[in-house]
Amino acid sequence: MASHRRQMVGTQAAYVAVIGPGADATAPDTALAREIGRRLAAEKAILVCGGLGGVMAAACQGAAEAHGLTVGLLPGGQRSEGNPYLSVALPTGLGELRNGLVVRASHAVIAIGGSWGTLSEIALAVRAGTPTILVGGWKVEDLPGRPAGTLHRADSAPQAVQRALAYARRKPP
Amino acid sequence: MASHRRQMVGTQAAYVAVIGPGADATAPDTALAREIGRRLAAEKAILVCGGLGGVMAAACQGAAEAHGLTVGLLPGGQRSEGNPYLSVALPTGLGELRNGLVVRASHAVIAIGGSWGTLSEIALAVRAGTPTILVGGWKVEDLPGRPAGTLHRADSAPQAVQRALAYARRKPP
Amino acid sequence: MASHRRQMVGTQAAYVAVIGPGADATAPDTALAREIGRRLAAEKAILVCGGLGGVMAAACQGAAEAHGLTVGLLPGGQRSEGNPYLSVALPTGLGELRNGLVVRASHAVIAIGGSWGTLSEIALAVRAGTPTILVGGWKVEDLPGRPAGTLHRADSAPQAVQRALAYARRKPP
Amino acid sequence: MASHRRQMVGTQAAYVAVIGPGADATAPDTALAREIGRRLAAEKAILVCGGLGGVMAAACQGAAEAHGLTVGLLPGGQRSEGNPYLSVALPTGLGELRNGLVVRASHAVIAIGGSWGTLSEIALAVRAGTPTILVGGWKVEDLPGRPAGTLHRADSAPQAVQRALAYARRKPP
Repeated sequence: MASHRRQMVGTQAAYVAVIGPGADATAPDTALAREIGRRLAAEKAILVCGGLGGVMAAACQGAAEAHGLTVGLLPGGQRSEGNPYLSVALPTGLGELRNGLVVRASHAVIAIGGSWGTLSEIALAVRAGTPTILVGGWKVEDLPGRPAGTLHRADSAPQAVQRALAYARRKPP
Repeated sequence: MASHRRQMVGTQAAYVAVIGPGADATAPDTALAREIGRRLAAEKAILVCGGLGGVMAAACQGAAEAHGLTVGLLPGGQRSEGNPYLSVALPTGLGELRNGLVVRASHAVIAIGGSWGTLSEIALAVRAGTPTILVGGWKVEDLPGRPAGTLHRADSAPQAVQRALAYARRKPP
Repeated sequence: MASHRRQMVGTQAAYVAVIGPGADATAPDTALAREIGRRLAAEKAILVCGGLGGVMAAACQGAAEAHGLTVGLLPGGQRSEGNPYLSVALPTGLGELRNGLVVRASHAVIAIGGSWGTLSEIALAVRAGTPTILVGGWKVEDLPGRPAGTLHRADSAPQAVQRALAYARRKPP
Repeated sequence: MASHRRQMVGTQAAYVAVIGPGADATAPDTALAREIGRRLAAEKAILVCGGLGGVMAAACQGAAEAHGLTVGLLPGGQRSEGNPYLSVALPTGLGELRNGLVVRASHAVIAIGGSWGTLSEIALAVRAGTPTILVGGWKVEDLPGRPAGTLHRADSAPQAVQRALAYARRKPP
């Protein structure tokens, strides 16, 4: 059972995606994710993710501890593959294509750690013009390609959340 | 502002889609939708819909009155097109293809009134084997094709909700 | 091995979807589909379909006999599930959501016979405003809902092809 | 007008995606793409791409010069945005999500040059386990993350095509 605090109207809330490795997540990655989830919930942001384990589950766990709302867009067709900290678990059956929906559903993206799945989401977010904050993994200068104006770096959980929310609240839809 | 009651864990809740016309909804359709939304929320089911107006907004309004959780999978890329009773408003940018996601995300579907968009969702639900309850619009025998074992009829809001939840709780994913 | 006639430039060709039952197709349905495929190819139209058997395979077979180009948008991830008369077999992994892509890819739709999958495609096409010709199965008046201006009836393969191409050539994209 | 050589049956052909920048493509990128397209067509492979300009159009132009078959999965809903060298131009209306379909439709991917859109496709291909050949842009060691066993490098158009086809012919679906 989870309880939710009073939430904003859904069309007016800040939606922040937390992306990062599932099964391969490291302990520092998941610790960071959990703190980020907690801070997003404390700020009444809605946390969007791919719904599975590792960084995704840790971020949702943190958000649940602060009575926040979490949404998982699952790659498969089975709701049961979702982590137990999701408020809303949505099977999409789209496989990796659901990564694009995670980005579309969010005002800002926080990317924790490094994996190929995460990289595809970062690249999609940059293409979509969605502000993306890298924390605890790749540095902006590690990524190939020309520097993108929407790609930022944070050195800690509070800084990542503060930057993501600054972008989310500036540019609503 | 909306408040939510204590919810079930997201992977264990019952998810019920309410589908029906948006702009073209009739007054009896929206009255029925509102009562159905209220009853679904009272039963702690999560209401899934296409996120727009008419039947969708009325069902969400009813659910919000009973402090329920509502999810809108929006066809466009703008969150602002969502109705004000959504707890979670997710822009998909998929257009009408999002109808298939509404069905995939739900254990059971309640179809109110009649429209071509609704018909495509009913047909998708039947194909997916998702139990579908028709109420207030087409009768099962109005629909073309062979009778489908997952297609049912209800004559009132309480009966529609009771049937949808019976199916949702029997067949989890 | 299939050979193709000279084709139009891909952006300028007429694309016509042929939709209908797969495994459940009747002999009259597949005979009609084959003649429709042959006539579409003779007119240098590109045939789009869901890529599987029954009506889809028969239409592709007819088109292949007339050296036409056929495209199958397959529901699963395996190319091998495509029928042997496809020029281009594209696994999408989208399941039934690929029906929406079949409609989006086509200037006009010819619906043969009756099934729930077909009905969802008809409904999607009507919603998208794509001209749809019913032949050999449901009549326009069998379908529920208000009459849609883009839904037509044909009584034979030549009439279905002639009507579909008239619409396809009038309204390019 | 384009003519096509005799093609393999669609379910048995080799499908190779060529990905790379559109409007931002450099002259060396497009020269490389054109030669790659020509060589793929000479080998009777079907070229799959995102259907727009730059590297995509150059690869299709090369394939058309060798009478090959080219398929463009367009991001928008308008067929007219496709390049004039496409045999088959399919509007998807999925935006950047169509990148995932390009990968799913292909046995192997050749990535030319460097851009964020290309990076998302490379990352998706690596995640899907699809062999990916980098040529003329990033080196394997430029990309972040752990080395992926399906990511390869080629130094010329002939080498890129030879490697892509070796992978495509080894692993059918």
